[in-house]
Amino acid sequence: MIFSKHTAVEAREDGSYAASIQEGWDVVGNANGGYLLAMAARAMADAAGRPHPVALNAHYLSPGRPGAVTINPELIKAGRRFSTVRANMRSDSKELVTLLGSFGDVGALEGPMRIDAEPPELPGPEDCVRIESDPAGFPPAMMGRIDLRLHPEDAGFAIGKPTGQPLFRGWFRLLDEEPIDAFALLLAVDAFPPTVFNANLPISWAPTLELTTHIRGIPEPGWLRCRFSTRFISGGLMEEDGDIWDASGRLVAQSRQLALTPKA
Amino acid sequence: MIFSKHTAVEAREDGSYAASIQEGWDVVGNANGGYLLAMAARAMADAAGRPHPVALNAHYLSPGRPGAVTINPELIKAGRRFSTVRANMRSDSKELVTLLGSFGDVGALEGPMRIDAEPPELPGPEDCVRIESDPAGFPPAMMGRIDLRLHPEDAGFAIGKPTGQPLFRGWFRLLDEEPIDAFALLLAVDAFPPTVFNANLPISWAPTLELTTHIRGIPEPGWLRCRFSTRFISGGLMEEDGDIWDASGRLVAQSRQLALTPKA
Repeated sequence: MIFSKHTAVEAREDGSYAASIQEGWDVVGNANGGYLLAMAARAMADAAGRPHPVALNAHYLSPGRPGAVTINPELIKAGRRFSTVRANMRSDSKELVTLLGSFGDVGALEGPMRIDAEPPELPGPEDCVRIESDPAGFPPAMMGRIDLRLHPEDAGFAIGKPTGQPLFRGWFRLLDEEPIDAFALLLAVDAFPPTVFNANLPISWAPTLELTTHIRGIPEPGWLRCRFSTRFISGGLMEEDGDIWDASGRLVAQSRQLALTPKA
Repeated sequence: MIFSKHTAVEAREDGSYAASIQEGWDVVGNANGGYLLAMAARAMADAAGRPHPVALNAHYLSPGRPGAVTINPELIKAGRRFSTVRANMRSDSKELVTLLGSFGDVGALEGPMRIDAEPPELPGPEDCVRIESDPAGFPPAMMGRIDLRLHPEDAGFAIGKPTGQPLFRGWFRLLDEEPIDAFALLLAVDAFPPTVFNANLPISWAPTLELTTHIRGIPEPGWLRCRFSTRFISGGLMEEDGDIWDASGRLVAQSRQLALTPKA
């Protein structure tokens, strides 16, 4: 249960939450954006008194380093089905992330069903390419904290053979069979390599400006089936869209982030 | 210039902004979400000292009615390229919208270009179906404030013949050749009928929970070419994705909203 333990938050009497960025969740020294998102969302959900993030926005302000952080959720409105909360996450020295989200009980709503999409076709996890971590750089340290397996057709970038298509498909799970809840989905939406690594662009840091996640279901136990793609790389910016499906074939999360294109 | 005039904001000495929801921008009495977004974004951009919203999130809390509103932007961080601002828009009696955005100069960034998408094919505006307003209900009053023309293949829902596909394609412009700036793009992303109107579901209010817009370019003069589609209607929720292209064939905005499915 290392993910739960390393994203735990503790309520303080003043309404803020204490947490600690742990070692090993970084990409070249900077804490992964999904890891920070999960930590902040725990504090916001607790403050909202609601079990799940439903729609959560994050703007990344400064890289996070291991050490103590404070999250200060502020309730904007407690509605009948959703409560809307904003928060900043800051370290001693700076603002790291600012967030806004609506929280509720995913699965408590009812309505019609119509799906016009299919989960990505993938070889079994044992036939996909596990990304191992190299704490010294790439693949990043955080890959040692998760089990991420790429579709073999998308994995050549690691040996200098990008596909030319800004697309990654693959499997995601936590280590030691830790169950994937709504907060772990927030980790999953930012865990894959940037899609531009497959687009014949320079392989370097592509900082996220903004990341929005919609939690559409709580996953059944098992691997997540993930697809991340980019259609528009232009004007120094690119979007990256994620669809995440659970083992039962149900969409459980959608994400879109806006990132700066990597510099040569 | 009725759009600019009707979304104008006035800075007060205390750092807040006064604005007024004008008549005629409503859908069955409730001000359109994109109209409110444009108004709030003007105040936030002014407070940020940056010309354009780049990534803007909004959570809708209560329906807006004509009358005075206050927007109170709060600067979270002024960075080198972007400034991040949050704000609430409230009327005398309630919170209407809460927002978070990063503002900057769209077009000042540089980077590689790669586009894996095409603008939607549309007959000319003169061969599309203009949505006229009926102040008494549907089509909504706000259609009298804009010039929105649907692809004829997508327009049958209005006479009880939905296509069965949650998709709308069409043209958008402001009245009287008012130019479309970044703020008018915020109007455009929420101006089309809900995609579910074409999905053989009940035609009724589909309230937006959250709406995120990325401004990717400032449009050249002329019509906007728009496409809105939905892939996942499930668990009482649905996303709606928008791509907006300018007259020169360049993507200028992307949007995604999470809405509640309409009730029977």
